[in-house]
Amino acid sequence: MSFYNQFLLPEDQRDRLDVVLVSPRNPLNIGAAARAMANFGFSNLAVVAPYAPHWREARSAIGAPELLQNAKETESLAEAVGHSTLVVGTGTLTYRKPEQRVVCLPDLAPLVRHETERSGRVSLVFGPEKHGLTREDLSYCHLLVEIPTDSHQPSMNLGQAVAVCLYELASRAFVADNGTGGSTGLETSNSKGAAAASGRLELLAGVVERAMVAADYSPASMREANRHDLRLLLRRLAPTERDARRILGLFRRILWRLER
Amino acid sequence: MSFYNQFLLPEDQRDRLDVVLVSPRNPLNIGAAARAMANFGFSNLAVVAPYAPHWREARSAIGAPELLQNAKETESLAEAVGHSTLVVGTGTLTYRKPEQRVVCLPDLAPLVRHETERSGRVSLVFGPEKHGLTREDLSYCHLLVEIPTDSHQPSMNLGQAVAVCLYELASRAFVADNGTGGSTGLETSNSKGAAAASGRLELLAGVVERAMVAADYSPASMREANRHDLRLLLRRLAPTERDARRILGLFRRILWRLER
Repeated sequence: MSFYNQFLLPEDQRDRLDVVLVSPRNPLNIGAAARAMANFGFSNLAVVAPYAPHWREARSAIGAPELLQNAKETESLAEAVGHSTLVVGTGTLTYRKPEQRVVCLPDLAPLVRHETERSGRVSLVFGPEKHGLTREDLSYCHLLVEIPTDSHQPSMNLGQAVAVCLYELASRAFVADNGTGGSTGLETSNSKGAAAASGRLELLAGVVERAMVAADYSPASMREANRHDLRLLLRRLAPTERDARRILGLFRRILWRLER
Repeated sequence: MSFYNQFLLPEDQRDRLDVVLVSPRNPLNIGAAARAMANFGFSNLAVVAPYAPHWREARSAIGAPELLQNAKETESLAEAVGHSTLVVGTGTLTYRKPEQRVVCLPDLAPLVRHETERSGRVSLVFGPEKHGLTREDLSYCHLLVEIPTDSHQPSMNLGQAVAVCLYELASRAFVADNGTGGSTGLETSNSKGAAAASGRLELLAGVVERAMVAADYSPASMREANRHDLRLLLRRLAPTERDARRILGLFRRILWRLER
């Protein structure tokens, strides 16, 4: 029933993006990062100088995505990003003055797309949980991306940061290109169905009105006003043909009981 | 150095959104969900029927965001969303045919913004880790939102799903407003006034159901199915608070006559 059968960033372009984790410590975070990659259809993971026991633990975890087995392990960030034409560093920049261009995450997708479309390769680099990317790490980056977070709690959990970045890239890459950043046009799968015809609403109004009378809902002097309000109410509710028929069925039954 | 000094969705509108976790099991996931909320500047958390030991553990974790301490704990989803005018269910819809309108996450922000701007309240509901929201849970939702994920690994980790949804809402709300996305589709052409809160619809559903029983509308074996359909029907109709009160008045009268 999924109506997003394909991502907005095509597969061959997602294959041109590497996620690089620099010295991740927590095996749960490594697993979470890998899972987010699988969720959004990315498969190239590189891990720089991981803490060996935790790296082993993450890879052997039950249900670990296959891409963890195929992950590239490198000693240095330089090696991990060696083949990339666009290296993007992530992190909170609250406490430092970056030397590179900074883009906000919602603006990253068109840049990545531009690079992958002309057969470049992109690395998206995430720092260690505690302190993020060092100044040395950042020096390998062409560009920094900032996730817009609240100034009271700017620092994101690693697995969540990876998820948010990849969601943005996978779902947004093609959208921001038409200028407006507007709708994909893939909006709904369940429309409401055909609206009830006016005649059906009149029929319904008639039966509801009879039920009102049978239930002594209001004095006779109010009937004209009630009929008017009821007609407006039914138009405001704008039931579908099917729903209108259903409501009609219920009121017919009620009326039958009331008048018996 | 952050150049996003303020969110795209203003604070007073973020205050009109509740994150609702239905029966979360894993304390790490509860903590991760709360952290994502803090990252994106949301503070209203409600937790439905949590597993008590894990809920205690999550709240007492070192570094747990303050909003966890202030979280509302309820026994039922009905109670948690009682004051909301737009209830949005989340989850993978790969294996089920939803009965409500479905929007893709990138299209959700304008709908939420539209609701909060006219002083409505929005609940964003996440199901338990294992199986997600049940059919019963979904019947409280006006709208379902789907995160566009890869069909090979569609199901997201709870904490990551919360992060991705809130990122989208916090950073995207003002962007997608040109043209197509502005309306919830839950309303008619006339300006309708404030939508009825979920609690009011429940009250109404209860009275209509009693009227159905009193009128012998259908055999007892159908009552459960009827209750479910009725709940969905009322959400489709999306009456205003004023209209809901009016319909309630009529059905109370009818019920009184039928039961007399």
